[in-house]
Amino acid sequence: MDNYIRIFDTTLRDGEQSPGATMTSAEKLEVARALARLGVDIIEAGFPAASPDDLEAVRRIAVEVGHPARMDGLPRRPPVICGLARASKNDIDKAWEAVKHAAHARIHTFLATSEIHMRYKLKMDREQVIERVAEMVAYARRLCEDVEFSPEDAGRSDPEFLYIVLGEAIRAGATTLNIPDTVGYTTPDEFGALIAGIVKNTRGIENCVVSVHCHDDLGLATANTLAGIRAGARQAEVTLNGIGERAGNTALEEVVMALHTRRPVFNLVTGIDTTQIVRLSKLVSNYTGIVVPPNKAIVGANAFAHEAGIHQDGMLKHQQTYEIMRPESVGVRQSQLVLGKHSGRHALKARLNELGYALSEAELDKAFGRFKELADKKKSISDADLEALVTDEFYQPREVFTLDGLQVACGTMGMPTATVRLRDPDGAAHTRAAIGTGPVDATYKAIDSIVQASNTLLEFSVHAVTAGIDALGEVTVRIQGKNGGRTLDAQKEVEQPRTFGGHGADTDIIVASAKAYLAALNKLLVASGGYGEAEKAAQVSAVLA
Amino acid sequence: MDNYIRIFDTTLRDGEQSPGATMTSAEKLEVARALARLGVDIIEAGFPAASPDDLEAVRRIAVEVGHPARMDGLPRRPPVICGLARASKNDIDKAWEAVKHAAHARIHTFLATSEIHMRYKLKMDREQVIERVAEMVAYARRLCEDVEFSPEDAGRSDPEFLYIVLGEAIRAGATTLNIPDTVGYTTPDEFGALIAGIVKNTRGIENCVVSVHCHDDLGLATANTLAGIRAGARQAEVTLNGIGERAGNTALEEVVMALHTRRPVFNLVTGIDTTQIVRLSKLVSNYTGIVVPPNKAIVGANAFAHEAGIHQDGMLKHQQTYEIMRPESVGVRQSQLVLGKHSGRHALKARLNELGYALSEAELDKAFGRFKELADKKKSISDADLEALVTDEFYQPREVFTLDGLQVACGTMGMPTATVRLRDPDGAAHTRAAIGTGPVDATYKAIDSIVQASNTLLEFSVHAVTAGIDALGEVTVRIQGKNGGRTLDAQKEVEQPRTFGGHGADTDIIVASAKAYLAALNKLLVASGGYGEAEKAAQVSAVLA
Repeated sequence: MDNYIRIFDTTLRDGEQSPGATMTSAEKLEVARALARLGVDIIEAGFPAASPDDLEAVRRIAVEVGHPARMDGLPRRPPVICGLARASKNDIDKAWEAVKHAAHARIHTFLATSEIHMRYKLKMDREQVIERVAEMVAYARRLCEDVEFSPEDAGRSDPEFLYIVLGEAIRAGATTLNIPDTVGYTTPDEFGALIAGIVKNTRGIENCVVSVHCHDDLGLATANTLAGIRAGARQAEVTLNGIGERAGNTALEEVVMALHTRRPVFNLVTGIDTTQIVRLSKLVSNYTGIVVPPNKAIVGANAFAHEAGIHQDGMLKHQQTYEIMRPESVGVRQSQLVLGKHSGRHALKARLNELGYALSEAELDKAFGRFKELADKKKSISDADLEALVTDEFYQPREVFTLDGLQVACGTMGMPTATVRLRDPDGAAHTRAAIGTGPVDATYKAIDSIVQASNTLLEFSVHAVTAGIDALGEVTVRIQGKNGGRTLDAQKEVEQPRTFGGHGADTDIIVASAKAYLAALNKLLVASGGYGEAEKAAQVSAVLA
Repeated sequence: MDNYIRIFDTTLRDGEQSPGATMTSAEKLEVARALARLGVDIIEAGFPAASPDDLEAVRRIAVEVGHPARMDGLPRRPPVICGLARASKNDIDKAWEAVKHAAHARIHTFLATSEIHMRYKLKMDREQVIERVAEMVAYARRLCEDVEFSPEDAGRSDPEFLYIVLGEAIRAGATTLNIPDTVGYTTPDEFGALIAGIVKNTRGIENCVVSVHCHDDLGLATANTLAGIRAGARQAEVTLNGIGERAGNTALEEVVMALHTRRPVFNLVTGIDTTQIVRLSKLVSNYTGIVVPPNKAIVGANAFAHEAGIHQDGMLKHQQTYEIMRPESVGVRQSQLVLGKHSGRHALKARLNELGYALSEAELDKAFGRFKELADKKKSISDADLEALVTDEFYQPREVFTLDGLQVACGTMGMPTATVRLRDPDGAAHTRAAIGTGPVDATYKAIDSIVQASNTLLEFSVHAVTAGIDALGEVTVRIQGKNGGRTLDAQKEVEQPRTFGGHGADTDIIVASAKAYLAALNKLLVASGGYGEAEKAAQVSAVLA
């Protein structure tokens, strides 16, 4: 057995399935690019059968990230681009349509094998399940030479039955066998034993890669994944920050850094450039609006916080006394401060390049304008500020309505009032005032009276990007539209209302709040009204009517 | 070996050590009360030798929570109250002074046993370590019949040496032997083997309780704790939400719910009332300002989020298809909405009692006033709103300066301006205006120009307490004062600057921001100036001079 662990990132599929983590196509593409740079082996880019939008997002990633010519001269082999499909011809066709443009494409299909899922969800018996698996894996294999099969809820399935199902999948052409603990139920001992049993008892498994896919419902996802790897798995399915439904998936950063930090124990390697981990963690947190707590392993703000006190006090006699990995190994930069008011366009460009942003000249002009504005208000501009600024400027959804002006009065005297001016897609200005329970409520009511897209605000949060009271504030909101469309959950086969996230950054948090809300509303409008280039004008008139 | 796992909660000691998690004495007492109601067996209430304030906080908990008469007629045996002490007579004396009033008191002392810690931190050889342990455990045992000893950094210590040190500690009178993986370095297999070796090879261990204390640097704390328990440990040291230095400690909720959910595997019980877990998680998050991400196991907002979609769609054929525990089992209430504008004082009192708040009549009057104010602005008031309101009203530090008025203008036109009126402890009003980069910055600058306590804002975050744009906003800030005192870290023996958190709730987030900042500033003033009852007037004049 080789000692290389394939990292299969499913941030864009299982991760995006977490409530409110919906990303725009542009955001997904940016995450996929960053994942390729990080060195993941396989990107599960989505579930193409969910909707035409989902298919298109996966297709774009296959075309733009899955192809060597598009990799901006990076030395790496492009990652495999994978699409999820239920065990049906329609799903498999859609998945293939989405991924086939990648240099290395994979179809991942699944069917549940636990008694409870077969009885209550599938209403199929064991024979029927075996038959369907054999048929659909063979069908996928006729389209694509790289086929992954997962027996859903394997953690609660009868191992003897699993050996048979997996053996049939292999006979039908599956090349990777993924073993999911779908409900996060197993302990490391149990999960390790399950994988060991599969490796030992499944016919033909020696020619396949065994994969593990764990969930964190009991806080054991990372330990289960490592137990599976020690028992013979050579692929780990993970997400950044461990995002995903319920308590989420296994965190990429934990598995990779455990293997890395304890290499003498595991004697295994990955292809990950660990120094990019913290940057990717932030990118995903920004796009999904899912916060990373300070005490999160590897990527939390406090994960290396002992550093500060120690350096200041000069008290520590030996670095490793309380440190098992170097902050630099995951990309935590010790020197933070970089740019200020007098920094030029060249310095900005150089710094953005170092941070991994390759902007065109036109984009750089815009970014430099924003940078100068910010530098007028704030003395020192850190990497975090720059990242917030670039994200705010370039990774917003295609704008339908734009914020043209905002004026707010509030305080303890009551009657918080906001006046908002928006431009619609035709460039016409609309101004409205509203009173609310607070300045954000007033602002949102004023925006609502112009945009008229009824929705519920599910979540609202603000954090300062950097320390200091003049910091850039970043606002994340999450809304659910009354007419915002629904999305299909691959596993539960349940259509759920889609939720839309938006973020905005500004030194004025009320302005940032307005931007964030507008970003989410624009996503909602695009999803519900299909605000395409052509229909845009007509649709807007309808909305404004 | 019995099948009862003792839950040793160190939220107030190791948890409070996380950067910025500093709590006031009142907050600590409230958390300790809630921990007693939750049913934890041992509360590690603090490190009394750190400062007179720390000692006093532990003493108050021993007196008010550690005594049966004070337990408000609850049927439970009061928890053991434990104080941490380095292996020195002074520390042990202080710990005993703090905990001795509890019906069941414990002294917890420790000394490092890994080569790296002995060489670089202690500068002691093995013989000296053994001698000191025997001497100090015996000293503690003369004061207190319940003595716990921890060999610090046991995870990286030579097991053969550990057997000897632990044997000596037992001979000297230790009753609990705690094995810490101080730097979060071990894997479950390694840690389980370490505990099994200790149980097998340590002389006299059969009459002691073996305890495990893990850290989450590699995301393995819960798995390591469970591996230790399976190998024979009968006490688990944990914190709520897994807070603690760096990546934090083992999460109480994960260990308890893993044992609970997988009882047939573990065949072990705890004394925890699991239905209080989510409420405590929120309490600790509010007081420390350390957020819980939506994908946190057990207590994250999404941990049971599949529920919503499923119920709405009526699609799920069988509850357990995607659910391994019931939300009710950890206190997630399915019916949320409770009170509105027309609810009376009696309804409010009843609801607060159900939520676990026992307010006096005078406090209830205040709460009812706040409730009516809120009900004027917001149609329906949820449990979360009520909890934010009560926390904001009753668990603030003793106020030095109070907010008397605030008026803010901001928006895209620039020049955000805030006018603030504060009352000092003598009741005199001070009004100042300031311009800032945003409304919060302007407000904080206006407050600073009155209070004049120089500090750095380390963190600022806002979240909406409930869904809906008229929601109550809750602001958490964390500051570090230039003269805010320092705190002693028990393990690293490093004095670090103290940081102070504050929170505020209001429908106007700028007002909430002002309250939160003032709360943190008041804590800072009390800590640095010793704003006691007597000196208060004099100190304030000095500050205002």
